[in-house]
Amino acid sequence: MTNIVVVGFGAMGTKTIEELNKKETVHVKAVIDTNPMYKGKFTNDYIKDNKQIPIYNSLEDIEWKDVELAIVTSASFLIQIEPLLVELANKEVNILTIAEEMSYPEATNKEIADKLNKLALNKNITILGTGINPGFILDLFIIVLSNTCLNINEIKATRVNDLSEFGTTVLKSQGVGLSVKEFEEDVRSKKVVGHVGFAQSIHLIAKAFKWELIRLKEEKEPIITNEKVTVQGEIIDKGNVIGCNHKAVAHFKNNKVITFEHPQQVCANNYPETKDEVEIQGVPNIKVKIEPEIPGGIGTVAMIINMIPLIIESQAGLINILDLPRLPSIFNE
Amino acid sequence: MTNIVVVGFGAMGTKTIEELNKKETVHVKAVIDTNPMYKGKFTNDYIKDNKQIPIYNSLEDIEWKDVELAIVTSASFLIQIEPLLVELANKEVNILTIAEEMSYPEATNKEIADKLNKLALNKNITILGTGINPGFILDLFIIVLSNTCLNINEIKATRVNDLSEFGTTVLKSQGVGLSVKEFEEDVRSKKVVGHVGFAQSIHLIAKAFKWELIRLKEEKEPIITNEKVTVQGEIIDKGNVIGCNHKAVAHFKNNKVITFEHPQQVCANNYPETKDEVEIQGVPNIKVKIEPEIPGGIGTVAMIINMIPLIIESQAGLINILDLPRLPSIFNE
Repeated sequence: MTNIVVVGFGAMGTKTIEELNKKETVHVKAVIDTNPMYKGKFTNDYIKDNKQIPIYNSLEDIEWKDVELAIVTSASFLIQIEPLLVELANKEVNILTIAEEMSYPEATNKEIADKLNKLALNKNITILGTGINPGFILDLFIIVLSNTCLNINEIKATRVNDLSEFGTTVLKSQGVGLSVKEFEEDVRSKKVVGHVGFAQSIHLIAKAFKWELIRLKEEKEPIITNEKVTVQGEIIDKGNVIGCNHKAVAHFKNNKVITFEHPQQVCANNYPETKDEVEIQGVPNIKVKIEPEIPGGIGTVAMIINMIPLIIESQAGLINILDLPRLPSIFNE
Repeated sequence: MTNIVVVGFGAMGTKTIEELNKKETVHVKAVIDTNPMYKGKFTNDYIKDNKQIPIYNSLEDIEWKDVELAIVTSASFLIQIEPLLVELANKEVNILTIAEEMSYPEATNKEIADKLNKLALNKNITILGTGINPGFILDLFIIVLSNTCLNINEIKATRVNDLSEFGTTVLKSQGVGLSVKEFEEDVRSKKVVGHVGFAQSIHLIAKAFKWELIRLKEEKEPIITNEKVTVQGEIIDKGNVIGCNHKAVAHFKNNKVITFEHPQQVCANNYPETKDEVEIQGVPNIKVKIEPEIPGGIGTVAMIINMIPLIIESQAGLINILDLPRLPSIFNE
């Protein structure tokens, strides 16, 4: 039995708990969420759940001795999550996180990554960032496809998804509802974040392929609606923003190129279908299409669940998909 | 520098040698082919090759002490290749083979597989079967896709390829040019083999997913041309066979099902495009299409080359893709 603590009782946290509760070989011992409203409550006060799991506000409220793994479902950025990861590492538990930048933190801040790696080695635990993207579509999937190639010159990939079902936090992060001018301001002030994780995916591919990066350029463009649309009860006028088209182009010393495009928008009428598409130009050329795209929410929860046996099996340290001790697969018991 | 001996100087062997010769960290020391015409000859007597590699008729003609890996490019079936593998294992070299049944020999003959595993452990070498199919499309690729799923109920996959460019040996193995009656006779006498490897792919998935197989059924149907076609200079009349549609259906104890379909034919006019298609029914549903299909010849050579670092890194024994010591990727130096 693997005892698990889930940190974060938001949308991803609750879905993760629901899935963990279906397993026979894992046990969610406790949930941590700093929101004071959860103090003294149990998971089944809020979600359909056959298990009554206590929710605590602080890491200090739990006996960690029999906990093997913490699953962290809060925050995207390394700098936000670092203090929590340090605190958890000091409890000597393995850490699985969906913070996008943690899928390859070296790409964001080598100093913090080195510090986390040293701490993990020192505490004999494993830390791994996972998710559908980064974590699968634009990195693991492409790296696995590369096995069928003798040579690769260029990689193009596009992920088109639909934000219609998402809440206001996500919609705001893509600039939905803004005027074009406001969008540009919010890109500058980093309120519009677009996709978090291009740098991670690109550095992971570069490491796997032994490509030496010389330039990574990212660009965020507004996706503009040509008709009035209603999103979560709010009207967005023609000419305003319904999403963010985030692109990344990476150049490598040996003339290799990676081009990623990830438009995230509310899919209005006649909008092209959602999909994941990967094109490898090399020997041979490969063109793969997943249609519709692998859904971000379920996909990320699946990646968390399926990585559990792998993080338990893995050597200590801050690891990434290239360090996995075997081919990963669905976690069936 | 990894010293390699390539066994088999046919189409796959020569292409493999050409690719190995482009690498800086591997060295093809010798080629073995039992055909007496090659005695005393060198690779560059036959192929464009900047290296003069000697060809021998027998394993005994070589000093094996500094050889780390043998790549075996001859034969499909376990029973054909077993004696050669035993001989090579006794030379204490790792063995990479494209014999289809060797991708998971347990699925064909557990006794031989156990014997090879014991021998490999005893000699401290690794034996691995690889290729595009089995080896990638219908097993590794599906297993990797499973990471994005919370649950999988059913898997359907189709590989459609075109035999137009292949020689008579391959065409005969699919019954091309036969009447329907002759096709049925040749299926019974096993002259028409269809695809070799369904059992391997299905057992590999079953092992990864912890599914318990109860029934595997294979079926070979003639693909009939509705017009006169010319293949490799030979005319095939309307109503005769231009290929073999080989299907496999596997049922599992927990009501899971795998359905594979692999029509191999000479693509006449208006024939549907070649492709690899995988459909996973589960949570979520996933539909992937690779169009055109990953080519069998180049793809298999790529799998051989890219598995070299992995077999060197791997633990001893008869291994398969589930035993790989990390996520495999293109072998760049």
